[in-house]
Amino acid sequence: MSLASLAPDYIRAIAPYQPGKPVSELAREMGLDPACIVKLASNENPLGMGPMARAAVEKELAELARYPDGNGFELKAKIAQKFVVNLDQIVLGNGSNDILELIAHAFLREGDSAVFSEYAFAVYPLATQAVGATNICVKAIDYGHDLDAMRAAIRPDTKVVWIANPNNPTGTLARPGDLIEFLELCPKNVLVVLDEAYTEFLPREKRSDSIGWLKQFPNLIVVRTFSKAYGLAGLRVGFALANPEVADILNRIRQPFNVNSLAQAAACAALDDLEFLKQSVEVNAAGMQQITAALQELGLSFIESYGNFVTFHCGDAAMLNQFMLERGVIVRPLSGYKMPNSLRVSIGLPEENARFIEVLREAMEA
Amino acid sequence: MSLASLAPDYIRAIAPYQPGKPVSELAREMGLDPACIVKLASNENPLGMGPMARAAVEKELAELARYPDGNGFELKAKIAQKFVVNLDQIVLGNGSNDILELIAHAFLREGDSAVFSEYAFAVYPLATQAVGATNICVKAIDYGHDLDAMRAAIRPDTKVVWIANPNNPTGTLARPGDLIEFLELCPKNVLVVLDEAYTEFLPREKRSDSIGWLKQFPNLIVVRTFSKAYGLAGLRVGFALANPEVADILNRIRQPFNVNSLAQAAACAALDDLEFLKQSVEVNAAGMQQITAALQELGLSFIESYGNFVTFHCGDAAMLNQFMLERGVIVRPLSGYKMPNSLRVSIGLPEENARFIEVLREAMEA
Repeated sequence: MSLASLAPDYIRAIAPYQPGKPVSELAREMGLDPACIVKLASNENPLGMGPMARAAVEKELAELARYPDGNGFELKAKIAQKFVVNLDQIVLGNGSNDILELIAHAFLREGDSAVFSEYAFAVYPLATQAVGATNICVKAIDYGHDLDAMRAAIRPDTKVVWIANPNNPTGTLARPGDLIEFLELCPKNVLVVLDEAYTEFLPREKRSDSIGWLKQFPNLIVVRTFSKAYGLAGLRVGFALANPEVADILNRIRQPFNVNSLAQAAACAALDDLEFLKQSVEVNAAGMQQITAALQELGLSFIESYGNFVTFHCGDAAMLNQFMLERGVIVRPLSGYKMPNSLRVSIGLPEENARFIEVLREAMEA
Repeated sequence: MSLASLAPDYIRAIAPYQPGKPVSELAREMGLDPACIVKLASNENPLGMGPMARAAVEKELAELARYPDGNGFELKAKIAQKFVVNLDQIVLGNGSNDILELIAHAFLREGDSAVFSEYAFAVYPLATQAVGATNICVKAIDYGHDLDAMRAAIRPDTKVVWIANPNNPTGTLARPGDLIEFLELCPKNVLVVLDEAYTEFLPREKRSDSIGWLKQFPNLIVVRTFSKAYGLAGLRVGFALANPEVADILNRIRQPFNVNSLAQAAACAALDDLEFLKQSVEVNAAGMQQITAALQELGLSFIESYGNFVTFHCGDAAMLNQFMLERGVIVRPLSGYKMPNSLRVSIGLPEENARFIEVLREAMEA
């Protein structure tokens, strides 16, 4: 008898999420000097973490043998103040990935279904599958969420709709008015998860007042992360804002110490470090300009992006990816998203972007 | 309609795990100076983290905006070398709590059952309940696991047996021979989770060769943590060693970045810091002697403990707990374990133990 057969079919069938290749792994594989490798594969903040967050981490180092505050009191107080919500609306996660899994574990099971968009973030169907619920994938429109079609796809057994805005890996953005219409027409007993991992990169006029909408739509869950603009991907912290009743359910199944002490301290400080956030957004805007101009010059089409990355089309992406890896440039293949002719490049520092462009040009001329 | 009702009954019924009270929380509640508070409530390492782990964390600080290595290559390589296992037998967790939840999510669902012991670690029944499986609680014998009765309690629908050795919160220890007999007689299609969070505190002759047993018993899962003797509770990292087939299933549902970068780096270094580990074990042995001698002197009975804590009996524990909190001493009430007349005290530094003894004596004389 196979021990694996003790797990349900839907778990055995999971193909784990493929993360961006770490620098250390490429260095090992290709025998490259890690210092010469440019990683533009995981939508991280090229500036690193902010000085205030860094100082908070260093201050916390003495207390690492202590368990973290399981209630995350200080971080929740800071979030409540910053986003004008109550403490009982907040759920902290070990990255926003943890939040997505908590939602699946709490609200989805065999016999239920969840709706997501083609080309949407890979964790949605994985989290749904891991609890034995059915994935309903709705065809995208211009690589973005077709909200009307997603609403039409909701079935009586649908409990959750996953919406990434901006979406990863395509960078597409839904308009606030369309999202409000979706929420208004969506059945009230279906949870709408609005994953705004990249929202800090949006110009003010493009942003949704999603947190304000929580008052009107108790079935809305807004998900945020500190892994992108705030530069804390390595520490793991994200959060959900929701109706207190929904937040309470998620907190019941949350691991009591899911967010480590340093992540809590750094996230608190990061929310105060407005200067670093501003700088991160500016560096991203300039880098986006730098990379998209080069793509245009090279005659490569791309999807207009509202995130800190851009997906471009390049024919045989696997071959181009390998070419880049051999030269120490890590970008993200998208075959897992059924986009075998596209690559996603994260916006880096000017010199990192330049290295990417240089190698891309080399590949095009080869 | 209540949104909470979208979650299954068994999730709505969960009473979340009650962690030990953080120092900051008690300071807020009682208006005490945090520096005067002694926390002996969560079986942490009173020495803090080791110098090698600390150095590794500091070295890693520059890279925190990068995602952690999702495969945990370096930490797994170190574990493989140290414990003489293969890489494909290792599953990394966000603390061992994460490992316990992965096991429940992968192998238990509605209609299944899991066996655990009365007075065993609270996360076992919580993790089982959170996936809708049935908890089978087996009466303890002298506060320890009654392995024969646990084996007899296994039903056709039982998929998992949880065993804590030493057990928290009672500190009891099963003998290696009894565990082997249990494994030999246990059905081969039932996973036996041997949670050895406190194993480093055991004298060599009391330890089980549990990792060696993995070859013989493919249904065995050994769980370890860096939160106790290694002093990394605040960073969150633990691991499971198992048959490759079982480890593969757990890795399929593991969140790709469940272990943060600093925890990976610190755990690698901690495994090398034999001097700190030795010192931690010695400080624990001396503190155990200090506290149990005082309990005896005060006429308070206690459960002989093989961990870094001791549970003693004291009549109205809630009242004694409150008395201690007001004087800045945090210990652990055990009413959640249906032991309303007992408290668990973690072994601290000599002066912390002395403060605990002082306040305890004061309470007894009051």
